[in-house]
Amino acid sequence: MRIDYFMPTRVVMGENCVFDSRELFAGLGKKAMLVTGRNSAKLNGAQADVEKALVANGQARALYDKVMSNPSVECIREIVDAIGAEQCDFVIAIGGGSPLDAGKAAAALAYAPETKSALLFSTSFTSALPIVAIPSTAGTGSEVTRNAVLTNHHIKNKASMAGPAMFPRCAFLDARYLSTLSMSTTINTAVDALSHAIEGMLSIRASLFSDMLAKESISLIAKCYRRGDFGRQTREELFSASTLAGMVITNTGTVAAHAMGYMLTYNRNIDHGRATGLLLGEFLRFAQKTEQGKHAGRINEILASLDISSLDEFCSILDTLFRASGPYERFERSELEAYAAQAVRAKNRANGIAKPSEQDILDIFVKSLT
Amino acid sequence: MRIDYFMPTRVVMGENCVFDSRELFAGLGKKAMLVTGRNSAKLNGAQADVEKALVANGQARALYDKVMSNPSVECIREIVDAIGAEQCDFVIAIGGGSPLDAGKAAAALAYAPETKSALLFSTSFTSALPIVAIPSTAGTGSEVTRNAVLTNHHIKNKASMAGPAMFPRCAFLDARYLSTLSMSTTINTAVDALSHAIEGMLSIRASLFSDMLAKESISLIAKCYRRGDFGRQTREELFSASTLAGMVITNTGTVAAHAMGYMLTYNRNIDHGRATGLLLGEFLRFAQKTEQGKHAGRINEILASLDISSLDEFCSILDTLFRASGPYERFERSELEAYAAQAVRAKNRANGIAKPSEQDILDIFVKSLT
Repeated sequence: MRIDYFMPTRVVMGENCVFDSRELFAGLGKKAMLVTGRNSAKLNGAQADVEKALVANGQARALYDKVMSNPSVECIREIVDAIGAEQCDFVIAIGGGSPLDAGKAAAALAYAPETKSALLFSTSFTSALPIVAIPSTAGTGSEVTRNAVLTNHHIKNKASMAGPAMFPRCAFLDARYLSTLSMSTTINTAVDALSHAIEGMLSIRASLFSDMLAKESISLIAKCYRRGDFGRQTREELFSASTLAGMVITNTGTVAAHAMGYMLTYNRNIDHGRATGLLLGEFLRFAQKTEQGKHAGRINEILASLDISSLDEFCSILDTLFRASGPYERFERSELEAYAAQAVRAKNRANGIAKPSEQDILDIFVKSLT
Repeated sequence: MRIDYFMPTRVVMGENCVFDSRELFAGLGKKAMLVTGRNSAKLNGAQADVEKALVANGQARALYDKVMSNPSVECIREIVDAIGAEQCDFVIAIGGGSPLDAGKAAAALAYAPETKSALLFSTSFTSALPIVAIPSTAGTGSEVTRNAVLTNHHIKNKASMAGPAMFPRCAFLDARYLSTLSMSTTINTAVDALSHAIEGMLSIRASLFSDMLAKESISLIAKCYRRGDFGRQTREELFSASTLAGMVITNTGTVAAHAMGYMLTYNRNIDHGRATGLLLGEFLRFAQKTEQGKHAGRINEILASLDISSLDEFCSILDTLFRASGPYERFERSELEAYAAQAVRAKNRANGIAKPSEQDILDIFVKSLT
């Protein structure tokens, strides 16, 4: 049995936890750069909570609130410039995966602003400004990972920069911040979290520890789906589930489903959670067909955590969820062939116990999307 | 729902992991102080593995191998003096709970050697020499906690010094180190781990995260008991279980059972795991009788993780295990009255959802020990 487990972020959950536990970032610096998107952190109250806590801590602040979905390297450089101009010494990232990843990437790059773009997508950032992460979606898990996924226009894809210094020092989960989310964002982000947990179980780096986290996460998401409301308990459980799934992937990595989903997001701007989710069912069918040896039975373990008995049932649930958010996107076969040719080269494909060939990937694309 | 979770230690498990993952401590310092007991780290090969890894890393070393069971403050000061004399800049603690706690305490105290004994038992150590923990029993969980439990002759009891800096940087779990343990040590330490996980579930600080860790730990220990051998799989699962239980108590603390067990260890030198375990069954009966409100059903959750249906069955299993290690110790009632008077004042008693009065504690002592 091999285990390699690391997740040094302090995780605090509870109503009003940012203000109540503000001593956790009181020592991180004199001036914070708040990194957010345009609207959500204002709408859901997170930005105001952070500002109130910083005032109470006697800490100054500056604001960068222009992070767009799937932030690019150019956006990160803009934040780094702002950090320099404002002389900030730590970063508080607030929002969904995009602001969180942008804040984490900028905190690392602010420490080494001369880093050439070609060297940016490494996994070796061992220094960064201290980071505080305040998620406002229950999906990304970025609040407990060492990664930031950015849009890299050079390779026409999404890519990861990472390092131990990119783990946030603390993560604050206040489920009130989820209450202003649209139904489609709630669904897409929950499916993203589910995909993290499931892909973690299909990683060659899965261990007893990561499986425990993944199974708890999957089981919580399934319970929330069955409960079918979005009250406080559901929001808190989805937040717990997405953070647990983040703890999974920071130890296991993701696998081919994420690599394939990136193609849909980069090329067709499909929301990340939906993009992966649209492919997840057929990917699991492929994984079940090819599982063998010590990995046999993995899909059944996943189904047991979901408390369902077949992949047909799983696909049908995902189908219901996604159709509620709008009609399926249409793709030409030629387009999918180009995606398959690129996705087969992804690092996370090789990280899986099921390693689809280019033809397998094309089959999954075609079955899922046409 | 409230969660406050923190466990920043990197955990590596696997055969030969100390040598194979030696890069994890290559950057921690130029000279390590190895802290161990007299024999076990030599017998089980751990000390030799560490020395080989340090040579390969180009790091020097010194050795303090005189840690006794239940180390005293005086022992810690001796290690601190040795660290100073040898100019060591990090600590590698190898062994059961006693050497691990001694190494962690010395690493903190080496940073502030002028600390008066009266101030030693605080929870605020925010600086310490870097610590590497290599457990050779599957019980203590000290490899992933911020605490060191020491014998404090001033208060005639065991007491805890703690702080965030006392988390080891990394923990190495090589199940080969368990293979030289006696049956009684294996049982006592496994019961210690079980007690950590169970007490964590009965803590007022229990959360969804700590419950997940605790239930996995309890379930692994129960499986190992049922398997009934001490082969490699059992050793690895017991190691996983004890580390998970350590992750529980560093977030929840222990409760009254540990407070009561300390009395038997301090006054009658009964092994820590056995001391707590002898009281655990009757303590759980008390907890079951008094559980109410949102805590109702806790004992049944524990029994479900154990995959048994009653506390009678649990008590009978513990009884079988302890009788295998020798006849029960005998106590006079007057002795137990004095213990109850002291145990009722312990901090961890107040940390539980079941808070036994002095009379309740005496009843548990009497039912368990006479």
